[in-house]
Amino acid sequence: MATDGEHVVRSYEQELKRLDTLLAEMGGVVENQVALAAEAIMSRDGEAATRAVELDPRADALEREVEHFVIRLLALRQPVADDLRRVVAALKIAGDFERIGDYAANVAKRSIVLDQFNLPLSLSALANMARLVQQNLKLVIDAVQQRDPDMAMQVWRSDQLIDDLYNTIFRELITYMMEDARNITPCTHLLFIAKNMERIGDHATNVAETVYYTAVGRPIEQARPKGDTSAYAVVRPEA
Amino acid sequence: MATDGEHVVRSYEQELKRLDTLLAEMGGVVENQVALAAEAIMSRDGEAATRAVELDPRADALEREVEHFVIRLLALRQPVADDLRRVVAALKIAGDFERIGDYAANVAKRSIVLDQFNLPLSLSALANMARLVQQNLKLVIDAVQQRDPDMAMQVWRSDQLIDDLYNTIFRELITYMMEDARNITPCTHLLFIAKNMERIGDHATNVAETVYYTAVGRPIEQARPKGDTSAYAVVRPEA
Repeated sequence: MATDGEHVVRSYEQELKRLDTLLAEMGGVVENQVALAAEAIMSRDGEAATRAVELDPRADALEREVEHFVIRLLALRQPVADDLRRVVAALKIAGDFERIGDYAANVAKRSIVLDQFNLPLSLSALANMARLVQQNLKLVIDAVQQRDPDMAMQVWRSDQLIDDLYNTIFRELITYMMEDARNITPCTHLLFIAKNMERIGDHATNVAETVYYTAVGRPIEQARPKGDTSAYAVVRPEA
Repeated sequence: MATDGEHVVRSYEQELKRLDTLLAEMGGVVENQVALAAEAIMSRDGEAATRAVELDPRADALEREVEHFVIRLLALRQPVADDLRRVVAALKIAGDFERIGDYAANVAKRSIVLDQFNLPLSLSALANMARLVQQNLKLVIDAVQQRDPDMAMQVWRSDQLIDDLYNTIFRELITYMMEDARNITPCTHLLFIAKNMERIGDHATNVAETVYYTAVGRPIEQARPKGDTSAYAVVRPEA
């Protein structure tokens, strides 16, 4: 009986580990999608764009796998307390990862359109933003695996920088559009690309909040900084 | 003992009903937010905009309440089979409702900026889109309460119309921007407003998929139509 009991306990632990493995795999896929999407924009690399889009069904399938696994685990193991919070957290994290993959695919699609235009502008602010987003995503994927609230807080705090860059890019792009009507279509796509990158940062922050809550047992106490102020932005053509 | 048993059963049923009540309340809040946001745009009603934004913390609090209630229910009742699927579905639906509230608040914020501009264009396509989105949202909230897969399918199918309207509006707005640089800032906000409305439609469709899956026990078999093709849109100024 003792052996049986141990066997059950070990196998339950293995199932919880399997959930971590699935999240690590899913995190790897969407991290790859974001890297490819950024490369597609910055290096005008159409092949990278295609690969970012082609990875999307894999991220979707992994989200479904996490969901099925969680429902099975809840039904068969009926976890309580910390384990239960960890299992429910996995569902939320998989949802955020799926959205990140979706946004990366959308960025990649728009990069294909951008290739048809001469871009008269520097993409350095966008490149900085993409770099910060990728750093935060990498860090939060590690925080998930290590259940580390300090790493989660670090992600949570640095999202503000991404939002500030987004607000700067928003105004820059509108100014370029005002200078020359031929910039309007490519800059509109760049607006949505920057917005998608900002959203990827937001979802990394959501994951950070989930990791923190699961590890510490209470939500992050500070109010989330309201980063994207572009909803209120007014830019007017020079008279 | 029999009385005790019955008491437990009844109280468990009441808890599941309480989950429905929470979702109904949350659906009501975000439906109200979307209606106020649409009114803010169409009637240039700043007070409606403020109310849409002010409702957002209520939607967020209800999502947290659903989450806490679900975790408590999983821990204490350890539901299985249909009940378990229903409880996990409630989590996902609350997540989609929360996003809908967020998008509505963002639309409302942008409407406040729009008030500073003379809009040289008809908002009739956007009004149509907002009407369809509200219809779908109302229908899917009912589908959740009635666990009705036919209503869910109806929502799922009509999302295509919303996406078609969005693609039309996207091209129209870019054309207006090319005509006059003074249109660029307001049209950029209108682009994001239309995109947010399209996303609200997407989240209503997500909820429809969850309702269908929970009721029927398998996902909707058709592939989801790829509605928003604007990522590939190219509009050029007339020579």
